[in-house]
Amino acid sequence: MATIRLNCDMGESFGIWKMGLDDQVMPYIDMANLACGFHASDAVTMNKSVALAKQNNVTIGAHPAYQDLVGFGRRTMQCSLEEIKSIVLYQLGALSAFCKAHKTAISYVKPHGALYNDMMRDENIYKAIVSAIASFDKNIKIMILSSPKNEAYKHTALLYGINVIYEVFADRNYNDDGTLVSRTRENAVIHDELDVAERIGTLKNYGYLHSVSGQKLYMAVDTICVHGDNEKALSFIKLLKKAMT
Amino acid sequence: MATIRLNCDMGESFGIWKMGLDDQVMPYIDMANLACGFHASDAVTMNKSVALAKQNNVTIGAHPAYQDLVGFGRRTMQCSLEEIKSIVLYQLGALSAFCKAHKTAISYVKPHGALYNDMMRDENIYKAIVSAIASFDKNIKIMILSSPKNEAYKHTALLYGINVIYEVFADRNYNDDGTLVSRTRENAVIHDELDVAERIGTLKNYGYLHSVSGQKLYMAVDTICVHGDNEKALSFIKLLKKAMT
Amino acid sequence: MATIRLNCDMGESFGIWKMGLDDQVMPYIDMANLACGFHASDAVTMNKSVALAKQNNVTIGAHPAYQDLVGFGRRTMQCSLEEIKSIVLYQLGALSAFCKAHKTAISYVKPHGALYNDMMRDENIYKAIVSAIASFDKNIKIMILSSPKNEAYKHTALLYGINVIYEVFADRNYNDDGTLVSRTRENAVIHDELDVAERIGTLKNYGYLHSVSGQKLYMAVDTICVHGDNEKALSFIKLLKKAMT
Amino acid sequence: MATIRLNCDMGESFGIWKMGLDDQVMPYIDMANLACGFHASDAVTMNKSVALAKQNNVTIGAHPAYQDLVGFGRRTMQCSLEEIKSIVLYQLGALSAFCKAHKTAISYVKPHGALYNDMMRDENIYKAIVSAIASFDKNIKIMILSSPKNEAYKHTALLYGINVIYEVFADRNYNDDGTLVSRTRENAVIHDELDVAERIGTLKNYGYLHSVSGQKLYMAVDTICVHGDNEKALSFIKLLKKAMT
Repeated sequence: MATIRLNCDMGESFGIWKMGLDDQVMPYIDMANLACGFHASDAVTMNKSVALAKQNNVTIGAHPAYQDLVGFGRRTMQCSLEEIKSIVLYQLGALSAFCKAHKTAISYVKPHGALYNDMMRDENIYKAIVSAIASFDKNIKIMILSSPKNEAYKHTALLYGINVIYEVFADRNYNDDGTLVSRTRENAVIHDELDVAERIGTLKNYGYLHSVSGQKLYMAVDTICVHGDNEKALSFIKLLKKAMT
Repeated sequence: MATIRLNCDMGESFGIWKMGLDDQVMPYIDMANLACGFHASDAVTMNKSVALAKQNNVTIGAHPAYQDLVGFGRRTMQCSLEEIKSIVLYQLGALSAFCKAHKTAISYVKPHGALYNDMMRDENIYKAIVSAIASFDKNIKIMILSSPKNEAYKHTALLYGINVIYEVFADRNYNDDGTLVSRTRENAVIHDELDVAERIGTLKNYGYLHSVSGQKLYMAVDTICVHGDNEKALSFIKLLKKAMT
Repeated sequence: MATIRLNCDMGESFGIWKMGLDDQVMPYIDMANLACGFHASDAVTMNKSVALAKQNNVTIGAHPAYQDLVGFGRRTMQCSLEEIKSIVLYQLGALSAFCKAHKTAISYVKPHGALYNDMMRDENIYKAIVSAIASFDKNIKIMILSSPKNEAYKHTALLYGINVIYEVFADRNYNDDGTLVSRTRENAVIHDELDVAERIGTLKNYGYLHSVSGQKLYMAVDTICVHGDNEKALSFIKLLKKAMT
Repeated sequence: MATIRLNCDMGESFGIWKMGLDDQVMPYIDMANLACGFHASDAVTMNKSVALAKQNNVTIGAHPAYQDLVGFGRRTMQCSLEEIKSIVLYQLGALSAFCKAHKTAISYVKPHGALYNDMMRDENIYKAIVSAIASFDKNIKIMILSSPKNEAYKHTALLYGINVIYEVFADRNYNDDGTLVSRTRENAVIHDELDVAERIGTLKNYGYLHSVSGQKLYMAVDTICVHGDNEKALSFIKLLKKAMT
């Protein structure tokens, strides 16, 4: 029976603009993916977010992104591999300063938005990110999408001396080959929260998810991604937390 | 006889825009104040600048600034002390990531432009900066303007466990009380390079500068600031380097 | 009996971050101060904001600011007069493009935050702003704080061929000399909404406000500033709107 | 015999960083593509650039780009069509304000860098840009790459009431089908300036260019693009100007 931890994007306010119920969500999650100023957050917000995570004994992850505040890091940008490596290092370092100030540390990196998608699509981008992490601190893990690509991506990370964390999207449907059903399809997202909770239960206890066609997909899983945007999301997190402990 | 080291603002290119003759200047200076992305530089440039400094055995300093690219950090911004502390931490961390990747480290902090002036004018801003450094790494020193304020500023830094580096502007005239002649005055800057070189020689060998009225000003000095913007500046640095070794 | 119009900062969302109940507030206000991308808003938001204002027959004003997204334009920046004139022109032009696309136009300029305060404090900054407007379109008015400075500021604007709009802050206390009670004082802001509504009624019907010491302050007034941030603010706007029609 | 005008990217300095020999180049070109603050330039620079163009009787074009200063607008960003339309309007308006202040106007739009390439690759992006222009001012033309796509792109623009300006790259080789030889190929760029000058002469006098295989490519042409980055580029512009008049 696997231990599945909840990870959630946190610290995504920017300046005067607030996002997410961080104060309320933090006590219920295990891992906080903290924005680093490129798609969201700013120096003051990062300082507060690290403090909040530490106070709640939540593991801190860096959540680096393309440099695109107005697009919230959701727009793919054709960056060179040198640019990608450098922006990951920059953001890792910036977040680590607040961690040092609060006597804690970054445990993992989860790229954000378009950078996450591009990393899972293009192994060269993945390598650029992993090599950035390795050159900074080999104790920091990389969070990747659990999928048939698992083995190759895990192997690549290990070549750099980096461990992976497998993430499953419990509210997304999977094809028989273990890839996510495209968001262009109607059934890409599972909206029924009880269904999602049940999927997580099955994953935790038996190690598989049902694909859209009903096949058992055995998936490596360390964590599932939850959202902390609003009251409804918060209730769901509490529900999951209860079900999982 | 004091050892006086040359410090120079480096790594101030931004994206496609080049500034300074870094490649040519780096071999002749002792300390490189590296921009951290708030007034100049970017992730790719920072990576290259750290590599260049290390390759030339030049001591690396962080050169944090107000967040104002278009104004090059030269415009005073009314930031809260919390904001100042946070932006210094952010920039320190970002630069330190490139240092870690190149197996080197930040030795000191020299605030840039308006932030430097504001720090020397307002001790609360100075304390915010020093406390940011102390919370990050107590081995990192703070570079300050050598002046009658010396003792108070040094004492403050020591309270935080931080050492100071005294900087003298060899090409600026000083009043009898040890303050800089205001830039609004015609004689604020000494344009004759031989005069400047001679002032540095006197400072190095006898520990004083002549004030505008001809008084001997005994100044604590660890470093003087040089500029690396153009060929003329480069020649002057070479001249100084020769004179000082 | 004066006609007093309600002006409100609108269009201050940025990218994914929402601010204000614009859709709900717009029907109840007379003048919308639309952010222009320097302290808030972005191209897509500006397009929507202009459309929303036009649809509700609300007069459109430009709300230019210092270039400081993370500080929301609330931090004074030491800009040159050339910089101030240029950033006002830039923002005026940007907003006017959306107005042209929606077959409407900018009627007035109300500088935002620190730029508004700096303009009322320093007549040279005011002149830079007014000259920017005059060089763009002399039909566009400038909104200023109604105060003893009225006459001088109005005269200056007229020299440039520009008319002024007098704004009163109904929820702020005034000193006997007609200046605002400093925000550092406890009684700077009037929190009781009925008090505020009554002040507006007196201003509208008799042309004066009571100063903190109870003196009658006769004030030129064209508009008062309301806020549209939350449900409470919205209720208050509706109350005022009802009281004033 | 066609009249061929020289267009050149101008006004691409940013803040303190200078780019291009604008002062020296402006007298020799016919059309200045002025950056609008998204990939280069800033409010003060735009003001100066418009003044300089007007003083030299150079036709002013807007040079809008993706919002990416650090990447100089050269990195494709996956923007929605709504975003593209809005950022073009924003930049058009901003530049037009400086034109109004200097009693001149924008004559055409030439998208910059990645936005230009994306527009020529994807007709939906092209339509978004053209519709932005049409909603702002139907007297403003759109500059496009002269190519076999000519007819379709011209037709599309005319549907919006917009005229096109055909641009040829005289220093680039063309395939037999009229498309540019990819920059990944060695022979993409023609480095010999006399060859380029001769190509322009042939184009001007006979209306064709030779493709890489030696075929005559008859091309619609209104303007060719020149560069103003350095002394060598300036000399070439002077050479062309002389040859063409």
